[in-house]
Amino acid sequence: MSYRLSVDGRLERGEQTRRLIVRRAAEIASAEGLETLSIGRLAADLGLSKSGVFALFGSKEDLQLATVRAARESVVSEVVRPALAAENPLWAVIELWLSYSERRVFPGGCFFSSVRPEFDSRPGRVRDEIASLGREWEGLFERLARDAGLPDPAQLAFEIVAILDAANANSMLYDDASAYDKARVALRARIAMPTGTEINVATPNDTSIASSGSSTT
Amino acid sequence: MSYRLSVDGRLERGEQTRRLIVRRAAEIASAEGLETLSIGRLAADLGLSKSGVFALFGSKEDLQLATVRAARESVVSEVVRPALAAENPLWAVIELWLSYSERRVFPGGCFFSSVRPEFDSRPGRVRDEIASLGREWEGLFERLARDAGLPDPAQLAFEIVAILDAANANSMLYDDASAYDKARVALRARIAMPTGTEINVATPNDTSIASSGSSTT
Repeated sequence: MSYRLSVDGRLERGEQTRRLIVRRAAEIASAEGLETLSIGRLAADLGLSKSGVFALFGSKEDLQLATVRAARESVVSEVVRPALAAENPLWAVIELWLSYSERRVFPGGCFFSSVRPEFDSRPGRVRDEIASLGREWEGLFERLARDAGLPDPAQLAFEIVAILDAANANSMLYDDASAYDKARVALRARIAMPTGTEINVATPNDTSIASSGSSTT
Repeated sequence: MSYRLSVDGRLERGEQTRRLIVRRAAEIASAEGLETLSIGRLAADLGLSKSGVFALFGSKEDLQLATVRAARESVVSEVVRPALAAENPLWAVIELWLSYSERRVFPGGCFFSSVRPEFDSRPGRVRDEIASLGREWEGLFERLARDAGLPDPAQLAFEIVAILDAANANSMLYDDASAYDKARVALRARIAMPTGTEINVATPNDTSIASSGSSTT
């Protein structure tokens, strides 16, 4: 019994450490990319032993994959889950994602905007995962647009993702938050959402609402 | 006199070598980013001596800056100059840029789409140059939209760049050329260009037209 407790305790600590590491890895990657990630640097940043970090991931590719998945989880909990509980989920995903990017939840802006161009010419498991999550993200908008009865949902989904990415990219490159306003203007006009339609969603930190939403997958 | 000729000859050869190097550098950077560029690798790729390449650029930052400027020149000669000579220059820039991205003039797709997220969190001369060229690019669309009498040219320019970047990004990440069609559909609807309006521009290789266009700066 005490043996089991000890094992469980170690497993739990291992899981906590793993989460800490991928969180820090995603922060670094949002600004500097996934290729510059090194187990040595992460260990130094977090005051952990290099062998301890290595034991949790094994390879740089495994660390990169875990980081990509952690970034997805962050978008799900901060954006998707609360949005799906809102009255107008399509518009709520848009607004919550713009806020997510604008608040710099990741210091380098949207994690995926940073790593997509980095990996789109590098065949392998990391690229496959990033592409799969990109399709999932565009597919979410397509489904929500269809549910809202909007015409040509696949076309609309492409355009929504384009405008959101541009808002994030311009705000990062030009230090100019007006890109978020331009994105809202563009999407309000495109989705023919009456101006002044306010969304009614919980703030991302309201976990009671967030956890009651359905999953995207 | 023979001394001058010799110096001129060397200068010319130096300039040709420089162009060869930045061209190769831009190709690499479009796929792998500017940070992974190394003078050693470029020298090996091109069969040049490392000291010879170093003598032409001096520092990695100077090489990166020269590469960014060479990529701009490529866009000017392949897209902007011929488009400005067309009947509908706004639409011609759009069509020629989509073709430029689709033909993979740079193997990693649009050079700037690759290096923007890489440098948007790295303060310095390279980031400043990339930001300045990004504003120049968006400013070109703003000016052409204003010349065409379209409302809110700054807003439209933001949206055009967003859609073009998304076409390039999706085609790279998903190996899916349909993103270019989605971009055309989106921009035709947005600019209220009647479907079937054909542009009449010279092909990018027609240098007689290209060289007669005006500059963008």
